[in-house]
Amino acid sequence: MEEAWYLEEAPAPDEEILAQARARQDNLTKPKGALGRLEEVAIQLAGNQATLTPSISKPAIVVFAGDHGVAAEGVSAYPQSVTGEMVRNFSAGGAAITVLARNFDIPFRVFNMGTVDSLEELPNVEDRRVAPGTQNICNAPAMDARQLEDCMTAGKEAVESAGDIDLFIGGEMGIGNSTIAAAIAVAHTKLAAQAMVGRGTGITDQGLAKKSAVVTRALSKHLPHMRNGIDYLQRIGGFEVNALAAAYIRAAQKGIAVLVDGYICTAAAMAAVKVNPSIRPWLFFSHCSAEPGHEKLLNKLDAKPLLSLEMRLGEGSGAALALPILQSACVLHRDMASFDEAGVSRSD
Amino acid sequence: MEEAWYLEEAPAPDEEILAQARARQDNLTKPKGALGRLEEVAIQLAGNQATLTPSISKPAIVVFAGDHGVAAEGVSAYPQSVTGEMVRNFSAGGAAITVLARNFDIPFRVFNMGTVDSLEELPNVEDRRVAPGTQNICNAPAMDARQLEDCMTAGKEAVESAGDIDLFIGGEMGIGNSTIAAAIAVAHTKLAAQAMVGRGTGITDQGLAKKSAVVTRALSKHLPHMRNGIDYLQRIGGFEVNALAAAYIRAAQKGIAVLVDGYICTAAAMAAVKVNPSIRPWLFFSHCSAEPGHEKLLNKLDAKPLLSLEMRLGEGSGAALALPILQSACVLHRDMASFDEAGVSRSD
Repeated sequence: MEEAWYLEEAPAPDEEILAQARARQDNLTKPKGALGRLEEVAIQLAGNQATLTPSISKPAIVVFAGDHGVAAEGVSAYPQSVTGEMVRNFSAGGAAITVLARNFDIPFRVFNMGTVDSLEELPNVEDRRVAPGTQNICNAPAMDARQLEDCMTAGKEAVESAGDIDLFIGGEMGIGNSTIAAAIAVAHTKLAAQAMVGRGTGITDQGLAKKSAVVTRALSKHLPHMRNGIDYLQRIGGFEVNALAAAYIRAAQKGIAVLVDGYICTAAAMAAVKVNPSIRPWLFFSHCSAEPGHEKLLNKLDAKPLLSLEMRLGEGSGAALALPILQSACVLHRDMASFDEAGVSRSD
Repeated sequence: MEEAWYLEEAPAPDEEILAQARARQDNLTKPKGALGRLEEVAIQLAGNQATLTPSISKPAIVVFAGDHGVAAEGVSAYPQSVTGEMVRNFSAGGAAITVLARNFDIPFRVFNMGTVDSLEELPNVEDRRVAPGTQNICNAPAMDARQLEDCMTAGKEAVESAGDIDLFIGGEMGIGNSTIAAAIAVAHTKLAAQAMVGRGTGITDQGLAKKSAVVTRALSKHLPHMRNGIDYLQRIGGFEVNALAAAYIRAAQKGIAVLVDGYICTAAAMAAVKVNPSIRPWLFFSHCSAEPGHEKLLNKLDAKPLLSLEMRLGEGSGAALALPILQSACVLHRDMASFDEAGVSRSD
């Protein structure tokens, strides 16, 4: 049997270039380590791109949208119709991520993976609806095997159709998907559901307790049947979440760095790493959101996010904001003078 | 007697616009508060600029350089000649802040306030040398009254000569100035010197203990004589630190927002607020550095920095990196659609 595309290994960082990039950083006109996280990022990108002058100059954003059967449990403050309404808002340019994409001049598209309502044709929106929302994970697997395959293909094609890019930013929109993220986070970390659920779009204390119970209930149903990464995607994933996971895998395989957004995207990244651990070095984490489970999930991935601005919007908004940091890390690494070049004395 | 220019009050934020800007944020297509710190920043800028569509589009950077008599105590890992050598590196474009200024297209100048060595004429460098370094604060006030006045005038003129700007970024370079920052921080917070000194450019454990003792010794000499903000500047300041403080005051008076950089700039901001508390709403804090005293000093100022990237370079580098965040906060506030405009349903 042919191996599935998503199991193919991503290129490993070049160890020799990693060492040379580290040496280069120590020779630039600044105290050793004084650029902090920027140095780590530049060195990692150098290793990934196998060049001493890494760069991030051709980013692209794809936002994946999808609805969730679990919304029937009353886990969100917003009605499900908002997912489709926000797809229209993305298309019209009024949503946060579209404002940021324009501001930073980043190409932007939406993949509609499965809103409950079918939508009219919209500029910049590709109709990839798998179904009008997933199944309620309290009662059944989120999707069947064919639907999962459709999500994986869509994520792969989102990257392949983006053209010549060196950074992939994924975003998501889906009422109910912070419950899905919490389920994924609990399944991967084995921490208590209470620690991993948050207010999402803004639910009450009562709603929070319900959300936690929903996650526990769903996992007691599915955990006994989850043996590998693909089972996780199919049983407790979402159309947009699984397409994201597939896009992360494909980007890494093609040597394209990934800038992961907030809690839901990090859950997708966790699921993607479970399927294909070789992609991990290609993932950069943009921010730690206000969702309380996010930090714990980042820890599980041994990920240090670049920003912490108490954001909890999704859409890829945190990743778009972190882009200038990533680009600056590369530019500093490339353009700063060495002590010798600048005639600056070294430390005693 | 005529009141000194630096005591004139800065314009107060417009309370009505602040309230309207808050209402506008709550009406944009996102859950309430989902843009976190970006919402606070946009609202504050709206109040400051007295407009519902604040913007940051005309920034400028001025780096102030100066040497410090306290370097004679052996508090730095680098020789004093590095201050002047780095001024040449700024001029030639090889230093971190110049790389960032080019990358973000921010006008950039250097004010040489008092390197130990006199420098040849250099592009983008204004020679404002007050003296070849300050006095050693362990033995004497850092400067006399006339020298302080020269620093204040230079800071004021740095802002006034920047043209039509809406954001001022100050940077600093001066071997020994993290010891001066620690002295300022201890004097203003009354915390122990041990809590406020850090490794600066990279001193050893032994050097750290010495630095702490130096700060304690200097303050035991000067604290009994410090009655007002001007005394603080004159006795435990620095040429570049005091010019920075003056620039912050002048920017605020002219209705120009200030993006404060790291530990040394925050110490200058603290000193400036002591002289003229009305400037505080105009100060935005870019990052929390790896210098351990920085966070405590930020707390004293009730300041929440935007970034935390373990940087400890100075030069204005953290502030330059935070600029896209500040600009994005404004653009989102201005360009996002409201629920009504986008036809998106509200929460239940």
